[in-house]
Amino acid sequence: MRKRFDDELRHLNDLVLEMASLNESAIKKAISLLDEKNKNIAEDVIHDEERTDQYEKTIQNQCLKIFVEQQPAASDLRRVSSALKMITDLERIGDNARDIAEICMGLPDDCDTTSLPLIKEMAEATVNLLNRSIDSFVNLDLELAKKIDDEDDVVDNYFLMIRDQLIDIIKADFDPGAAIDFIMIAKYLERISDHGVNIADWVIFTVEGSRT
Amino acid sequence: MRKRFDDELRHLNDLVLEMASLNESAIKKAISLLDEKNKNIAEDVIHDEERTDQYEKTIQNQCLKIFVEQQPAASDLRRVSSALKMITDLERIGDNARDIAEICMGLPDDCDTTSLPLIKEMAEATVNLLNRSIDSFVNLDLELAKKIDDEDDVVDNYFLMIRDQLIDIIKADFDPGAAIDFIMIAKYLERISDHGVNIADWVIFTVEGSRT
Repeated sequence: MRKRFDDELRHLNDLVLEMASLNESAIKKAISLLDEKNKNIAEDVIHDEERTDQYEKTIQNQCLKIFVEQQPAASDLRRVSSALKMITDLERIGDNARDIAEICMGLPDDCDTTSLPLIKEMAEATVNLLNRSIDSFVNLDLELAKKIDDEDDVVDNYFLMIRDQLIDIIKADFDPGAAIDFIMIAKYLERISDHGVNIADWVIFTVEGSRT
Repeated sequence: MRKRFDDELRHLNDLVLEMASLNESAIKKAISLLDEKNKNIAEDVIHDEERTDQYEKTIQNQCLKIFVEQQPAASDLRRVSSALKMITDLERIGDNARDIAEICMGLPDDCDTTSLPLIKEMAEATVNLLNRSIDSFVNLDLELAKKIDDEDDVVDNYFLMIRDQLIDIIKADFDPGAAIDFIMIAKYLERISDHGVNIADWVIFTVEGSRT
């Protein structure tokens, strides 16, 4: 019974990892659209988001199957419940990447995206945080999970810096529509990072039995 | 056993309802800060958010308790799993209300909030959508749950109208920092409405066994 449970759990982990890899690739592709509006890449991001939705359903069914067939208790129950919860975060990250791609594709053609190098740095910090939160889940690494909140402060700080920079460039006659688009992209990155924090919180819950 | 399960389920529903009522009141209080920056009301919203966090933990424990003690199957399992998922939405609505309150309190004192009557209309539509999604959960009302997506289109449309209005007033020399704050408030309302749609999706999943 235990071996069967471990196999089911391994399968669950693999699925979560695949879903998270899709997310990582979607965020990177979405942000690359700031440099070049490429219709194929934008369609790729949309396709990734649809696959993420499918993964959510598959993983959810896998969790319910484990609940019914294995009736896990204590930390096993928390582990499966956490997976069930965290896929909501992963699914929404897919939505956020798609939102970013759609905003990038709608930017005016003459929009100068080079004036905002911070957005790319913020995207990098976000992807990094997300990878580490997923690592903490896969390895049930409590120490790593507890560091994610501090990394989120870095991402939040990028948001504030970008916001201030945008206010300055609006005053210097930058297209206010494009400025609002940029702040939305930064907001979506901030949201993605928040989802990473949630994932780490679920890891803490799984190991310690209570959430932060 | 069934009676016990029904009692547990009723208790679960009551808790979800209480948590949702807190949300409704927090959103209304947060938006009222646009009219008057009232420190006590802002603190109330923060307190509501903290209580929402507590509710999330209590309801989560109640769900895990039902999983272990009652080992529900089929639609009962879906119902408890849905409650477990939807409290994440309710918890985030609390966060969003708090975010709105914090933005309102940070607006410049001379900021003219009357130039954006649409934000209040949007807030009303959002609270309405949320109430109806919670009603659909409590009564397992599939017909109502299926209407929520259309109501979300109305809220999304408000966001676009507010965005356009803000671009216009920035061009007419409105403080760009305050404009970005307003668009963030509208974004948070849009997010709250998305959480309402998620709740309705969980109702559809509970009744039909698959998500939209």
